[in-house]
Amino acid sequence: MSQLRKDPVTGRWVAFHPERVRKAVEIVTLRSPRQRGHSCYYCQGREAETPPEIFALRQEGTAPNTPGWSTRVVPHPVPSLRVERQLVREGLGMFDRMSGVGAHEVIVESPNHEADLSGLENRALEKVFLTYRDRVADLKRDQRLRYISVFKEHGIGRRFMTGHSISEILGLPVTPLGIKTELNQCRQYFGYKQRCIFCDIIRDEQRMNERVVFENEGFIVFEPFAARYPFETWVLPKQHQSDIVLLDSGEGVQQLAEAMRTALLLIREALLDPPYGFVLHTMPNTVPRPDYWESIDQDYHWHFEIVPRVRESSGLDCASGSFVNPVLPEEAADFLRETRQRSATC
Amino acid sequence: MSQLRKDPVTGRWVAFHPERVRKAVEIVTLRSPRQRGHSCYYCQGREAETPPEIFALRQEGTAPNTPGWSTRVVPHPVPSLRVERQLVREGLGMFDRMSGVGAHEVIVESPNHEADLSGLENRALEKVFLTYRDRVADLKRDQRLRYISVFKEHGIGRRFMTGHSISEILGLPVTPLGIKTELNQCRQYFGYKQRCIFCDIIRDEQRMNERVVFENEGFIVFEPFAARYPFETWVLPKQHQSDIVLLDSGEGVQQLAEAMRTALLLIREALLDPPYGFVLHTMPNTVPRPDYWESIDQDYHWHFEIVPRVRESSGLDCASGSFVNPVLPEEAADFLRETRQRSATC
Repeated sequence: MSQLRKDPVTGRWVAFHPERVRKAVEIVTLRSPRQRGHSCYYCQGREAETPPEIFALRQEGTAPNTPGWSTRVVPHPVPSLRVERQLVREGLGMFDRMSGVGAHEVIVESPNHEADLSGLENRALEKVFLTYRDRVADLKRDQRLRYISVFKEHGIGRRFMTGHSISEILGLPVTPLGIKTELNQCRQYFGYKQRCIFCDIIRDEQRMNERVVFENEGFIVFEPFAARYPFETWVLPKQHQSDIVLLDSGEGVQQLAEAMRTALLLIREALLDPPYGFVLHTMPNTVPRPDYWESIDQDYHWHFEIVPRVRESSGLDCASGSFVNPVLPEEAADFLRETRQRSATC
Repeated sequence: MSQLRKDPVTGRWVAFHPERVRKAVEIVTLRSPRQRGHSCYYCQGREAETPPEIFALRQEGTAPNTPGWSTRVVPHPVPSLRVERQLVREGLGMFDRMSGVGAHEVIVESPNHEADLSGLENRALEKVFLTYRDRVADLKRDQRLRYISVFKEHGIGRRFMTGHSISEILGLPVTPLGIKTELNQCRQYFGYKQRCIFCDIIRDEQRMNERVVFENEGFIVFEPFAARYPFETWVLPKQHQSDIVLLDSGEGVQQLAEAMRTALLLIREALLDPPYGFVLHTMPNTVPRPDYWESIDQDYHWHFEIVPRVRESSGLDCASGSFVNPVLPEEAADFLRETRQRSATC
């Protein structure tokens, strides 16, 4: 039976138009293309073919831009934004514009061309998330940058061209509208309740236990109540934490890696390796101001949002801001939990 | 050179990452699939195979659900929302939900299976827009419905399955977040300036004359300053008008049909028949309240937003609310204007 649900964080209403969940799998129209080639300029041994590395987690004693690394961060070959420019803001009639100052980096997740993020060994996967954390922290030191966006696209379009598993970072001189809407709503909720809205959502999800897919001590994986897309999946730290920069290098990152791996493997198993994307949502680059009487740290809660592409999206959803989702999140969660019982690997 | 631009209406910043505009055409990776079959249940003569018609523009003297129509509106075969239910609103823990009350209709744009919206004859195309207008006006009489969304998807996914050219209508019991954001910004702008923001945009676009693609007496077609997508195109009435319901049946609809046809044909010519979608943005279903001291009619301005799919979109843009567009709207407008000079048909 169709229904509408409101996402408590953004206030967005989503129409659910539930066909049977098995159908959801049938509407997987897009497949990850097979990876091409056996080597590319992101591979170990070809470090000289990229611009010099910005960051790498590498074996002690190995030199930059040589083999011996686990993760390696290089400038994007065709950057959308560039760091080495001056931030110019100007008006053009009634319009506003600024120069494209920012950072655009590629995180090479593994030296191995055939590796896949969810297939990495524990320690290697942890290093990917530590790289996310450290790059966000480092880029935040540039006060021109207001928001650091970390995202990954798997099996989608041009970003997949080399066939090597990568993530991307955009350091932006503005906060994206979607994040701003979230931050504003979180602040309002905190102002009214003196509680973080995401902490409240986690408690309600645990209590209802209908949409939770996986939990470990530190992290929870669930299908959000007003999911915009079929099998949209969120991964959150269970303890309040505003910023991925605060993730600890020990248990914290181990638990995150386990939760993300489980989420990605279940989506792969259940939906037959669909293309997917995920985006980190974390605190913007705040500047301390003497008139800020309440810390924004209390009301925001960092997390990952994973969106598998299980059906063609038209771009119209986005244009009109109205979403129709054929799969109820409870049914998606059921399906993922069943997949977990069936499969030994997840 | 890359830059960021702010959409004055929503406040959304878009990063421009201009490759040469000719490249934009090269990244047309998606093609409209060839239409399948020569007949379907939307064709003239097969009226009995759909649910009874809700509305039709038909020759005088012809009976409902028989041939003789130009446009025909029927319930969607798999409706996302249904009209014949009670609107139930409820809380579930911290979450909010309502029953899926609403309307979901298909506008069959022509009795002819092979017809294409932009290829319709003048009078036939006008009738499509009159159908939009009349369905919006009629659905607004149902006070449970807060917003009537009219949209079309050409060459995209399942909606294209029959191969017959159709548009869709969703009558929603809530206003989509994207529209709400627009309405709020428009009201704020009007409150401050006592002018409609879209009227101001039209004046600035005419003055700068860099992004305008086509104008007739009543309508203007341009690439918006902070276009989210390559070749995103807006079509607006030049005189202030808040709601498509106010469109007049004479010159008004003739000018609209000419402007929309030109926009769609230019996109087809220039980008080699890409899939596209468009969405009507119009006034929500307002309820008169005694404490409303300013009419919302002054600050909103109805229009169409056309989005060609010239590259794969990841869904991530949408999830993070941040957009990167490789084509500057001035270059897109140049390209469309050149296409217009080259081509006799547009």
